[in-house]
Amino acid sequence: MKARENHRNKAIGIFDSGIGGLTVAREIFRQLPNEEVIYFGDTGRYPYGPRSAEIIKKFSRQNVNFLIEKGVKFIVVACNTASAFALEYLEKIYNIPMIGVVGPGAVAAARASKNGRIGVIGTQGTIASESYQKSLTAINGSLKIFPKACPLFVSLAEEGYIDKPAAKLIADDYLENLKNKKIDTLVLGCTHYPLLKKTIGAVMGGDVKLIDSAEETAGAARAILSELDLGSSAAAAGKRSFFVSDSPEKFKILGEAFLGRRIAKVELIDINSY
Amino acid sequence: MKARENHRNKAIGIFDSGIGGLTVAREIFRQLPNEEVIYFGDTGRYPYGPRSAEIIKKFSRQNVNFLIEKGVKFIVVACNTASAFALEYLEKIYNIPMIGVVGPGAVAAARASKNGRIGVIGTQGTIASESYQKSLTAINGSLKIFPKACPLFVSLAEEGYIDKPAAKLIADDYLENLKNKKIDTLVLGCTHYPLLKKTIGAVMGGDVKLIDSAEETAGAARAILSELDLGSSAAAAGKRSFFVSDSPEKFKILGEAFLGRRIAKVELIDINSY
Repeated sequence: MKARENHRNKAIGIFDSGIGGLTVAREIFRQLPNEEVIYFGDTGRYPYGPRSAEIIKKFSRQNVNFLIEKGVKFIVVACNTASAFALEYLEKIYNIPMIGVVGPGAVAAARASKNGRIGVIGTQGTIASESYQKSLTAINGSLKIFPKACPLFVSLAEEGYIDKPAAKLIADDYLENLKNKKIDTLVLGCTHYPLLKKTIGAVMGGDVKLIDSAEETAGAARAILSELDLGSSAAAAGKRSFFVSDSPEKFKILGEAFLGRRIAKVELIDINSY
Repeated sequence: MKARENHRNKAIGIFDSGIGGLTVAREIFRQLPNEEVIYFGDTGRYPYGPRSAEIIKKFSRQNVNFLIEKGVKFIVVACNTASAFALEYLEKIYNIPMIGVVGPGAVAAARASKNGRIGVIGTQGTIASESYQKSLTAINGSLKIFPKACPLFVSLAEEGYIDKPAAKLIADDYLENLKNKKIDTLVLGCTHYPLLKKTIGAVMGGDVKLIDSAEETAGAARAILSELDLGSSAAAAGKRSFFVSDSPEKFKILGEAFLGRRIAKVELIDINSY
């Protein structure tokens, strides 16, 4: 029983290509406050979006190796590209429970939609991978899916253009077509997009439910930990550690904006050695 | 004389971290139409901006090795980050004439300014490197330099947000302070920015001369080739070849927008083996 107790009090490992996964981390902090969390942002090799599937698998494997060396009990792939291209591959290789961001978002969207018409927005890579489209169709073959790449949203979020008029104009452009599709649900299929929720919601109107993958992924992580009897038994707030593969100072500044709280320390690691 | 003739008809090699250097290539095509050109875009390892100086030197050296293996006579470092951090280093190692994008832009700006007040815009990396600031001050110590990072301009250019109202609003934000500095010259210190020239010009007003580094670099390349007696003696238009380290299809599509002309073929190479 002691070993079990020790195991359940190990950390949750989260990795992303950079900063975006912090929206998932933020939700995990909120929904699972007593869990220790180790976050790795692969800032030295971001962005993953334009890279080939083989490279994304290799990078993801190194990221998982790092987290396993840190002794985590559970891994959250908080990156849409890595979830789309590497999650299945990772699950075959490693004997550790894992979750990505695509599945939980798709499940929540299928559940939320009343009219079966669902929009999906994401980066060019995520939309081209058709990962949300496939997941949604697997859940319910009669759903009508309307995908749309919104590549500028990532830079807007990173530069703090969150509710400025320019962000609204770009959102108007990107979402104009989706507005004519009579969707009642829209999946924010990119970890950066929750930062633009207000602007996206204003463009789409109050009748369209926005599915925040970050929120859904944290909820799914909580459910899995409970199901596997792996939840922390700690009474105090969990420790949070942050690691990156380049530019820790930049990550700290931008990361605090993404998390909405202070980051005490960001450690630099050599991910290529894993 | 035969050997000399053969040498002068070798190609000009251009490298960049990705697509941006194509604005330099476009100007070289225009100003030196009979030159054969080999372009390498390091799309598998872009962006260079956030990486350390050591890594940028290593990548640049591999890029030059590739171009030299292709038999080029002259190398254009069409990347602001590599020009800032690696050009001097490369010139020490290799016995082949080279040019970067920072020097020609700085020389042209110093020449153009009447009141000695010059603005420089670029990515966060370029502005932080102070490369333009140092080059300008080396030319004329009494120049007053006003630098400003405009990070969203790269994504706007890549997504075709070139003269849309959102681009104008963002340019208004970024350039507002510079407008109060009474500059008469503004250096577009990023290879992506020439695509936004019209919008930047509209914000700054007709009294501010915009210095297009791409144009100036091509002009400087022409002058150096002539000075070294290395200009092509071919009467016909030069051949143009394009190589990348990842995603050739994406480079082709985006590249055609940057070049304003069709790209017949883009070849994938393994740059890590150089």
